[in-house]
Amino acid sequence: MKKPLILISNDDGAGAAGLRKLIAIMRRLGDVVTIVSEGPMSGMGHAVTMQQPLRARLVADEPGYKEYITNGTPVDNIKMGKHLLLYKTPDVVVSGINHGSNAAINVIYSGTMGAVLEAAIDGIPAIGFSLDDYSSKASFEHTEQFVEQITKKVLQEGLPKNVCLNVNFPPFTASGPKGIKICRQANARWIEDFEERIDPYGRNYYWMGGRFENGDSRHETDLKALAENYVSVVPTQFDFTAHEFVTKLNFEA
Amino acid sequence: MKKPLILISNDDGAGAAGLRKLIAIMRRLGDVVTIVSEGPMSGMGHAVTMQQPLRARLVADEPGYKEYITNGTPVDNIKMGKHLLLYKTPDVVVSGINHGSNAAINVIYSGTMGAVLEAAIDGIPAIGFSLDDYSSKASFEHTEQFVEQITKKVLQEGLPKNVCLNVNFPPFTASGPKGIKICRQANARWIEDFEERIDPYGRNYYWMGGRFENGDSRHETDLKALAENYVSVVPTQFDFTAHEFVTKLNFEA
Repeated sequence: MKKPLILISNDDGAGAAGLRKLIAIMRRLGDVVTIVSEGPMSGMGHAVTMQQPLRARLVADEPGYKEYITNGTPVDNIKMGKHLLLYKTPDVVVSGINHGSNAAINVIYSGTMGAVLEAAIDGIPAIGFSLDDYSSKASFEHTEQFVEQITKKVLQEGLPKNVCLNVNFPPFTASGPKGIKICRQANARWIEDFEERIDPYGRNYYWMGGRFENGDSRHETDLKALAENYVSVVPTQFDFTAHEFVTKLNFEA
Repeated sequence: MKKPLILISNDDGAGAAGLRKLIAIMRRLGDVVTIVSEGPMSGMGHAVTMQQPLRARLVADEPGYKEYITNGTPVDNIKMGKHLLLYKTPDVVVSGINHGSNAAINVIYSGTMGAVLEAAIDGIPAIGFSLDDYSSKASFEHTEQFVEQITKKVLQEGLPKNVCLNVNFPPFTASGPKGIKICRQANARWIEDFEERIDPYGRNYYWMGGRFENGDSRHETDLKALAENYVSVVPTQFDFTAHEFVTKLNFEA
């Protein structure tokens, strides 16, 4: 088999430990091009840059490895990779390993998954990897074998049309995850609260915070799998249609 | 019936003609609070602001009408509305009227639809309105009767749980749209191209452009309805799971 071309992005920036782990794993599997944003892009979801021009700076250029830093979003990075910076369409796009879970509704806010969905829209097999641990000291050791195994399988067999993968890892434990579970996105949400402060000029401003609420008690969800120390894999798509209501709604006067 | 509370947002900013049309229609239906971003937010998708504090400035305060301008994204505006600026949960969230179509895959890039999806995640009935015409001189005249009709129906009957509406209008014609069609999101995508320029300091930069490609020939799509001069209504949801593959995939070693 010819060496595959692997495009990597993330939303935590070039210095993130999770990105460096992902690069190390992928360099064993093929030729790698990393395209990441210079600024933090957590929470950027599927944002694209329409108001300003984009720039890309080549910061590493070795045999089998290139790395670019851009002023764009994770979605921009995939678009620039596909149509500007790569010499051919990548065989797979991988994104992460994100510091923090992208399970449940987090998929819609996540820049890491924005990059993955953008690749899927463009017909490229794509996988997002995230660790359910925000700590800067979090260990990614237990993710390695699964990242390699899942990526190899996708490189060999591809993915169904219009489907990408949202893979989440439970926090590190010495015994490691119990295995992989194919899951549904849990129906959970954030309940925001805003902390009000006063700036030195007497004007008020707000820090957005919140707590995560899981109202989904089904067994086959990603949150349930993570809670039971499994790696959750959600087959993920970008058709937002609520198909069961297409024939039921009626808005004629 | 008590006067409903209506929350309005958009992604084209406070000065947009489509927003002003939507405000005029909604003020006939209930008490209105408008919360919009100070900057242009087209293409911001479901981005939320996590790196900086938020501000909201009250710019209009009349009986039955308040207007805030914020430094946040459309999704932030809904979160601030629900949890900070409103005295109670709104009866409906409406967003738009967007200058440009949000049919097909545009739903994932759209700040207008980001606001609508955020409201739906929070359990609030929500409708996005968009006009398939980017011209600054575009007429919104033909949208008025449909915006009012659809919003009234949603205020009276609500929407199914976890479902919001993505409503798109064909460009203005003297005879007006033929009616409303309930549709599926067409499977179409953007093919990007990047125009390279050199700045005065000799560095290259890129403007992202592209063309829209519709590879979906099914009859019941939103793009098809718009092309036939119908108002398209897509019942829209935020579960990204590709359910048919949950039982089919297997990534165990």
